[in-house]
Amino acid sequence: MSIGSKNSEGRVTDPITLTLSAIEQRLDQLLPNPSEREKVSLAMREGTLTPGKRIRPLLLLLTAQDLGYQSSQQGLLDFACAIEIVHAASLIMDDMPCMDNALVRRSQPTVHRKFGEAVALLAVVALVSKAFQIISQAEGISDSAKNLAVAELSHAIGVQGLVEGQYQDLSEGENPRSPEAIALTNHYKTSTLFCAALQMAAIAVGASEATRDQLRHCSFNLGQAFQLLDDLSDDSLLTGKDPHQDLGKSTWVNVFGARKSEKQLRDHLGYVSLHFSQACQHSRQTQQFVEQWFAQKLAAVG
Amino acid sequence: MSIGSKNSEGRVTDPITLTLSAIEQRLDQLLPNPSEREKVSLAMREGTLTPGKRIRPLLLLLTAQDLGYQSSQQGLLDFACAIEIVHAASLIMDDMPCMDNALVRRSQPTVHRKFGEAVALLAVVALVSKAFQIISQAEGISDSAKNLAVAELSHAIGVQGLVEGQYQDLSEGENPRSPEAIALTNHYKTSTLFCAALQMAAIAVGASEATRDQLRHCSFNLGQAFQLLDDLSDDSLLTGKDPHQDLGKSTWVNVFGARKSEKQLRDHLGYVSLHFSQACQHSRQTQQFVEQWFAQKLAAVG
Repeated sequence: MSIGSKNSEGRVTDPITLTLSAIEQRLDQLLPNPSEREKVSLAMREGTLTPGKRIRPLLLLLTAQDLGYQSSQQGLLDFACAIEIVHAASLIMDDMPCMDNALVRRSQPTVHRKFGEAVALLAVVALVSKAFQIISQAEGISDSAKNLAVAELSHAIGVQGLVEGQYQDLSEGENPRSPEAIALTNHYKTSTLFCAALQMAAIAVGASEATRDQLRHCSFNLGQAFQLLDDLSDDSLLTGKDPHQDLGKSTWVNVFGARKSEKQLRDHLGYVSLHFSQACQHSRQTQQFVEQWFAQKLAAVG
Repeated sequence: MSIGSKNSEGRVTDPITLTLSAIEQRLDQLLPNPSEREKVSLAMREGTLTPGKRIRPLLLLLTAQDLGYQSSQQGLLDFACAIEIVHAASLIMDDMPCMDNALVRRSQPTVHRKFGEAVALLAVVALVSKAFQIISQAEGISDSAKNLAVAELSHAIGVQGLVEGQYQDLSEGENPRSPEAIALTNHYKTSTLFCAALQMAAIAVGASEATRDQLRHCSFNLGQAFQLLDDLSDDSLLTGKDPHQDLGKSTWVNVFGARKSEKQLRDHLGYVSLHFSQACQHSRQTQQFVEQWFAQKLAAVG
């Protein structure tokens, strides 16, 4: 499953690259197409379309395929884009001056630096709202599945999700914290949106409660692994973000050091693989993708 | 339909007061019940539960009754509360330092003054998200109606609704504007959420497209009338907001004077009554309530 492989005519054929390209195209279609004067829409596009990893929508699509999804690809792609749009909104929000006051994101000036704070704030609200609209209008997916997806995504955003994670990070990040407290913040900051992505895949497929439970365990561990990778990369210039944002923060890496953190990350990845293999018993492309993706990133951090 | 009338045992019996009381109780139940440390949840409650007019949820409930709604009252009440929660979020957002930088709202210090900017911003995002969750989980309402309601509410919030209204007000409010441009901003700022409220009533009832169209005309005129009343009240100490927020702004009242603005307001109210009477041909409590409500408010401004 190497990314970017080409056929004899030089055309990209590997499924991951094709899926990523479909996500980019659909995000572009779903967002408003503004004139130069429509700053909020421009900020929404800038915050979302600047190249990113697209790991959340990709995992949603791969998981749904592993679970046997065969209905409208367009509706499922819209679910995936809704997840990415909420992720983009959360990045604009976290970067704001009253939050992390970040200068650079995805190797670009942050949205509030480019458009001003008021427009950035309006873009956050418009993006969150847009994500729910996209779900409610996804073609080829039942009304009941769309309602369940709205409930899952809302849960992942609110005071039991991204909002709580950002609040804990802001209010407690500079105090000494127990490993459990750090893991809980990481759960809210990162695992909850992975959870919404995988649950939305399961909802679209009509998966059993047992499968959904396995995917919840997957998400928890995936979020922890992802946040540990992010902390391990904090002094790297390759992240496209302000370096050393975590200086003085009680992250796992700052408290226990890089080596123990990498061990912890690999333990979480083990559980991710275990739970993916139990949730998706016939097809393992998601598990293989996650393993390969982390292996590449860890080699780069190494 | 006088508000606050009592029976022989001294208990309030008029339907408007009872409905307002049901809205307050349900808002209280739907919002998280936090400890003192959970600042975001406290800010969500403060921004929503501080006494307000509750005109949007009330109109949703009255309109649905006028249209013959007879299913679960709880589900419809939840739709109404979702509208009020989005309204509360929009007030917190508009008051932020990077927006109108307001000090007082509903006779209380604004949410960002009480909880800080970061918590206020997180509360805005959590409230918007909560509103969609409430709709998706409303009991006794069909999945298809809930999806339509999510789409309506999202439309009312985004770049064709509240977000655009606030942006236009911020970016163009201090420049000379044509009456049409002022009306357009007022449409985005105010009519769009009234529109979502009345459309959600119509959706819950399964009203015809012709009825929904009449209610759209109602909402447009209601929003204009409401914004004109707000502008006429700007120098009053009775609003519970910072007085004279509109000084230097190109509002209808500042451009054309109070007398012409009141005439304009009454013209819009005439259209509101006309369209309500065409949408709801058997029961007119909404129309009567709106007429009486504006008569009282205009007497107080006069």
